[in-house]
Amino acid sequence: MTAYKDRQLVEEKVFKDPVHRYIHVRDQVIWDLIKTPEFQRLRRIKQLGTLYLAFHSAEHSRFNHSLGVYEIVRRMIENFREYEEWDESDRLLVLCAALLHDLGHGPFSHSFEKIFDIDHEDFTRKIIYGNTEVNRVLKRVSTDFPLQVGQVIDKSHPNKLVVSMISSQIDADRMDYLQRDSYYTGVSYGTFDMERILRVMRPGKDEVIIKESGMHAVEDYLMSRYQMYWQVYFHPVSRGGEVLLNRALKRAKNLYEQGYVFKQAPKYLIPFFENHIEVEDYVRLDETVMNFYLQEWIQESDEILSDLSHRFVNRDLFKHIPFDGSMLTFGELTELFEAAGINSEYYLFSDSYSDLPYDYDRPEARNKRRPIHLLKPNGQIHEISSQSTIIHSITGLHRNDSKLYFPKDKINDIKDLEIKGDIINLLNELG
Amino acid sequence: MTAYKDRQLVEEKVFKDPVHRYIHVRDQVIWDLIKTPEFQRLRRIKQLGTLYLAFHSAEHSRFNHSLGVYEIVRRMIENFREYEEWDESDRLLVLCAALLHDLGHGPFSHSFEKIFDIDHEDFTRKIIYGNTEVNRVLKRVSTDFPLQVGQVIDKSHPNKLVVSMISSQIDADRMDYLQRDSYYTGVSYGTFDMERILRVMRPGKDEVIIKESGMHAVEDYLMSRYQMYWQVYFHPVSRGGEVLLNRALKRAKNLYEQGYVFKQAPKYLIPFFENHIEVEDYVRLDETVMNFYLQEWIQESDEILSDLSHRFVNRDLFKHIPFDGSMLTFGELTELFEAAGINSEYYLFSDSYSDLPYDYDRPEARNKRRPIHLLKPNGQIHEISSQSTIIHSITGLHRNDSKLYFPKDKINDIKDLEIKGDIINLLNELG
Amino acid sequence: MTAYKDRQLVEEKVFKDPVHRYIHVRDQVIWDLIKTPEFQRLRRIKQLGTLYLAFHSAEHSRFNHSLGVYEIVRRMIENFREYEEWDESDRLLVLCAALLHDLGHGPFSHSFEKIFDIDHEDFTRKIIYGNTEVNRVLKRVSTDFPLQVGQVIDKSHPNKLVVSMISSQIDADRMDYLQRDSYYTGVSYGTFDMERILRVMRPGKDEVIIKESGMHAVEDYLMSRYQMYWQVYFHPVSRGGEVLLNRALKRAKNLYEQGYVFKQAPKYLIPFFENHIEVEDYVRLDETVMNFYLQEWIQESDEILSDLSHRFVNRDLFKHIPFDGSMLTFGELTELFEAAGINSEYYLFSDSYSDLPYDYDRPEARNKRRPIHLLKPNGQIHEISSQSTIIHSITGLHRNDSKLYFPKDKINDIKDLEIKGDIINLLNELG
Amino acid sequence: MTAYKDRQLVEEKVFKDPVHRYIHVRDQVIWDLIKTPEFQRLRRIKQLGTLYLAFHSAEHSRFNHSLGVYEIVRRMIENFREYEEWDESDRLLVLCAALLHDLGHGPFSHSFEKIFDIDHEDFTRKIIYGNTEVNRVLKRVSTDFPLQVGQVIDKSHPNKLVVSMISSQIDADRMDYLQRDSYYTGVSYGTFDMERILRVMRPGKDEVIIKESGMHAVEDYLMSRYQMYWQVYFHPVSRGGEVLLNRALKRAKNLYEQGYVFKQAPKYLIPFFENHIEVEDYVRLDETVMNFYLQEWIQESDEILSDLSHRFVNRDLFKHIPFDGSMLTFGELTELFEAAGINSEYYLFSDSYSDLPYDYDRPEARNKRRPIHLLKPNGQIHEISSQSTIIHSITGLHRNDSKLYFPKDKINDIKDLEIKGDIINLLNELG
Repeated sequence: MTAYKDRQLVEEKVFKDPVHRYIHVRDQVIWDLIKTPEFQRLRRIKQLGTLYLAFHSAEHSRFNHSLGVYEIVRRMIENFREYEEWDESDRLLVLCAALLHDLGHGPFSHSFEKIFDIDHEDFTRKIIYGNTEVNRVLKRVSTDFPLQVGQVIDKSHPNKLVVSMISSQIDADRMDYLQRDSYYTGVSYGTFDMERILRVMRPGKDEVIIKESGMHAVEDYLMSRYQMYWQVYFHPVSRGGEVLLNRALKRAKNLYEQGYVFKQAPKYLIPFFENHIEVEDYVRLDETVMNFYLQEWIQESDEILSDLSHRFVNRDLFKHIPFDGSMLTFGELTELFEAAGINSEYYLFSDSYSDLPYDYDRPEARNKRRPIHLLKPNGQIHEISSQSTIIHSITGLHRNDSKLYFPKDKINDIKDLEIKGDIINLLNELG
Repeated sequence: MTAYKDRQLVEEKVFKDPVHRYIHVRDQVIWDLIKTPEFQRLRRIKQLGTLYLAFHSAEHSRFNHSLGVYEIVRRMIENFREYEEWDESDRLLVLCAALLHDLGHGPFSHSFEKIFDIDHEDFTRKIIYGNTEVNRVLKRVSTDFPLQVGQVIDKSHPNKLVVSMISSQIDADRMDYLQRDSYYTGVSYGTFDMERILRVMRPGKDEVIIKESGMHAVEDYLMSRYQMYWQVYFHPVSRGGEVLLNRALKRAKNLYEQGYVFKQAPKYLIPFFENHIEVEDYVRLDETVMNFYLQEWIQESDEILSDLSHRFVNRDLFKHIPFDGSMLTFGELTELFEAAGINSEYYLFSDSYSDLPYDYDRPEARNKRRPIHLLKPNGQIHEISSQSTIIHSITGLHRNDSKLYFPKDKINDIKDLEIKGDIINLLNELG
Repeated sequence: MTAYKDRQLVEEKVFKDPVHRYIHVRDQVIWDLIKTPEFQRLRRIKQLGTLYLAFHSAEHSRFNHSLGVYEIVRRMIENFREYEEWDESDRLLVLCAALLHDLGHGPFSHSFEKIFDIDHEDFTRKIIYGNTEVNRVLKRVSTDFPLQVGQVIDKSHPNKLVVSMISSQIDADRMDYLQRDSYYTGVSYGTFDMERILRVMRPGKDEVIIKESGMHAVEDYLMSRYQMYWQVYFHPVSRGGEVLLNRALKRAKNLYEQGYVFKQAPKYLIPFFENHIEVEDYVRLDETVMNFYLQEWIQESDEILSDLSHRFVNRDLFKHIPFDGSMLTFGELTELFEAAGINSEYYLFSDSYSDLPYDYDRPEARNKRRPIHLLKPNGQIHEISSQSTIIHSITGLHRNDSKLYFPKDKINDIKDLEIKGDIINLLNELG
Repeated sequence: MTAYKDRQLVEEKVFKDPVHRYIHVRDQVIWDLIKTPEFQRLRRIKQLGTLYLAFHSAEHSRFNHSLGVYEIVRRMIENFREYEEWDESDRLLVLCAALLHDLGHGPFSHSFEKIFDIDHEDFTRKIIYGNTEVNRVLKRVSTDFPLQVGQVIDKSHPNKLVVSMISSQIDADRMDYLQRDSYYTGVSYGTFDMERILRVMRPGKDEVIIKESGMHAVEDYLMSRYQMYWQVYFHPVSRGGEVLLNRALKRAKNLYEQGYVFKQAPKYLIPFFENHIEVEDYVRLDETVMNFYLQEWIQESDEILSDLSHRFVNRDLFKHIPFDGSMLTFGELTELFEAAGINSEYYLFSDSYSDLPYDYDRPEARNKRRPIHLLKPNGQIHEISSQSTIIHSITGLHRNDSKLYFPKDKINDIKDLEIKGDIINLLNELG
């Protein structure tokens, strides 16, 4: 009888996918993983969190993306097979890791993680190792298989080649999300020639390397990535949605800690409020639950919680203006808001985003990273920025953006006309 | 001061849209309508209900589609302006009707409407006429404006040209959803040349008519529509999801009527159980709420409700096989299931779908419909099937598909081996 | 040493292709065939002849299309390999036949073939069997390999499965040109889901058969084909270009036969004028040569040849109107034109096109064809129109279109005002 | 009676275009220009010269591109109309200039211009000012209209805004060719969001300026342009084709000057050989004629001309290797080739390409250019590299590529084995 790990479906199953045309599944293990409740739960977590508030069509889920990463890795392996550096016995491992790499994402990941001080990678591991269907499927392959999959995902696995397939500056994860998010938002920035990149990828000793003839395709990919960050992922309207969500959760948590009696207790959040989270609690929480609570909270008697929830649910967002603290500090602004009677803890927010298109482990690098390596026809290997003038010119390039968020209507409602005038003038000078 | 109805935004606003590239808004009224909670609610209703269970990427909302229909009507009007048959004073009316035409959709529309015997068109009107933000915006245009918009949507408006722009065999609604659903599912069937169709549409006396040179584009559109129905909209897996949802709601309703005590009362469904639904009840219900209840019901003590909910949430669907009642009747099957100890009320379901690609009000038509009319160069107008051999060949063509749904695992669990064998043999012969 | 037929390139070569993304070549034989002058000549024959006069962007060559057909067959084989009905030793044969199937096309195929009474399939064979580079490459595989390739192309090969891969109602040739011509013209009609069709194709005993689950994809393909014929291939402007070309060639031939002394003798056409054509003569003739002569002929002293050539080169086409001979016959028109002093042999033309979307070898069929067969899950095979209502409705559907072509300016220049008035009235009634 | 310049077609004409969907024409003047023989001639000049030798699908003509530039300018004007900086009386001028800007291109522009020391811009003017149909159409608008159109094309027109619409670092010409060449080659590099760029373009005092919110779209456009240059336009295989063409023309010219008797005199090239070119001579020359001669020359008795022509026609290209002259000079290589008996004048070639993604008229710039200017919300105007970190990082970035071309087979045929060995070793070290 065929070992579970080698078992194949009688006929290949396909999922129609707008980005990769079709996702192909033939391994029984992959099929079984897709059917687990923990993986199906990813249908209820949007890939791009609050970005639908800026791009109405960005409504796709992490389920979607996870299948895509799996498919890209599957295609990588098809190309790797003819090279001796590739060990076919790693195949199922990396396919599982690709499929499951985002398993631990919570609802609206970023805001959620910040408020409750949790880390989705941590929960990905917990789901893989814990008392779950996913764990049971993986264990049928072998006792230590869940551990191995977890290690590939958290980059601690000794096989660095396999790790780099899903975690590096040019990996299956990024290649899927750039194309997928581009497709769903309708922007053209995320397009690059993945077919070509797959053709020039080679299994190296400790990493995926790129045949030199693919250098331009990598340049184009890095530029796509850069554009997607600034044009899409860091969109200030989406960040404004996160701000609201963050403040609403903070308020709910504070109220809970103060013993406030909710009209309807948000029972699935309580483990988070109490910072005592079991895997089952985590898995139960998704965007259905989170949105349900936000919709319920509109009717709460606490005005702040009700107001923030109302704003989030009905997209009545805070205004955003540039803010770098040079003209006046956040502290000074806070005082002004408080003097005007606006609760600055919930109604004033500053955040800052930065991105680094490419860097490597050179001495002067601020964020050291593994380089992208090019393989020359003569077999030599070179870090890519030493070969590409355009990548050289952007290596280590940092770019920041800081914004201040506040509700414009609350400013308009300030009773003390003098303070109101001061604040309006100040904000106009900033924005 | 400019009348509200004529007020324009200082600068045109655009929404990036993957289907139409951009959605353009310049009217203050349209902008205000988009911001209402009732319109924002459409973000929480999927355009294609349970279809994401068959096509994982079909996760887009009715918000998405509603903007698209608005945009197509906006472009129709741009082309109509140079014809004297077009009355520019109807512009805002039809734009509002286009935007709001799906306002009354409930969660997972079809199953939901069937179980509670409600009609989304009825609720669209109720939201437009009732105590809502949408109504307040429309009333600022003029007192009877809500009524007019409602009449365009329900096709009772005396201006038949305007009605036909959003409701006919070739209207903005269909042109948007075919393209949009094609884009999101990733299938190629929904593509047709809308640019060309828009170019050949002319405002006629009582309807939109098509210049004869556009006949082939209409043929292609009708074929696209046909393919989308059979390849996408009637996908048996999606229908299987609806079956489950339908049975779960039916069970919940029956339990409520029998006085069952829910662990957590599904309070927003109670007006529906009691068939006493106010506009506010309706608006409050969306797929967040519906999915929340389904997830909650997994933990109910009623085994049937728990099981059906579990199946729906985790996509553990019923099996489907062809069934036309010719070999044995549904009644006979029901008896067999009952004899085997399976509750056929919840675990056996047959449904039937049919589609009519094109027909018109000819004597022998089973479903009379307004024809599509072609405008000849000499000014004559002809019904399209008299001109197009391919449309002639499909006029009145009916196609049906019937399926039987049941849970395969429950069959496998039948204790009485003889009955089990009979049922399995029967089902094998059918499928 | 590896036999020539099995020799592989050290590294796969790819051609970037806008329709199939990449064309993949690994066989030395294929690589060598592509490099032959006879195959490179296809770069100088447009895929769509005079269609660029109607769709300015339809400028692609048969080289382009031939690579595409090869690529589709290559992909078919990849899928066929796992079925025992497929004999891998036929692989190279069908790949070569796919690549070379259009080798014998002359410049502006249709007009050219008609005037000189030649058949491109005949010349494809002559090039394959004759003293050519292509023949030398094929013979290196085996002595009878050229013959076998020729037989697959002309459908006389005993292996009917292999023949059906490039010649049937759903073959690689059609699948490539529909998509390719759609891409280059920019129309959307030629899109269908080839990925899906490839997935459902199975090698049958005597033909490629289609898994039943692919029925809708085939419906869509047949409809695409139908639309492409009527919207693109039969475009009256393109046919008008063919008419001109046909008349110019006819005039040149007549002049040659009458001993007319050309300013510059069209030496490469003389074998065609004299109907004594060697393979070398044929291969030498391409659209460069043909267009060169047409451009030269503008300066000929023969007014008719000069005028027709001028019109073709500078796109000063004849006018076209519908014409079915019911109101008056072509003979009557001819007499009228002659009476008006217009040389009807060159300035009056009627042609007729017809298309049959699908048919099969049933008794009542006017054009018997091999059916498309569907494979049921139970292994039974059915002709497709017995399964698909939409294909059933178009089976045997004939559609004709007849047009009359003449130069409008020559009508305007008729001296006898009475005849002129008569002709104009008549043409207005027709058009 | 309407002035010719204002005359409109009764109904808008459209050309289906795969890049812009449709090209719209309503002005009688534009319609008449398109019909001139000089404009129709552009169908016989490929947009990308020899690039089809590297990308088989790059077979589109300058006719194609010229319509595209016209369409983009037409759309720019539609957006400009609402700004007072735009003068509607310039409309027809810039539309004509857009349509005609490439009128003077000769066959395989670059090689051809180099050998005969001519400039296509010079000939564009000559065609516009000379005894041509184009001139006659333009003169009907007004006596000085041809001059004005010529001045917009050659950038000497006093209206700098209008000039910048078709000639600047972000103009209609570039926006069309990047997208069009990307479409036809099938590469993804040329995609950028033109819709967005058109939306953010504003008519400025002396140039088109860009609203600041469009900065990212411009970044993306500049990167697309950069990639297209290095991945497509500078493709070494295409440059290798140019090398062959250049050498063949040089040989033919030298032979002519030496009194060589051609089997068939290349009469349309003689004015070029004698450097006494009239407009009619120029217009007569196109790629049909050029290719015809190259095909004829294969049969010439001069071995070099015959060989070079054969290579070009049948794509038997020279080999290319990197070459920067650092290891040995071109002169040294020449001597070696001559010593080996290879005619280096025709069989050894080195060329060098460079590109500058963006620069402006700063003191340290090597190639001063007009900057791209951004318009801030407060009305200030800034040079773009002062605002965009990514453009800043590539400003003034130069990149060079040098290649050596030679026929590999001639090296293999060197008789003196010692010299042969030396040359092979040298070339291996270089490549």
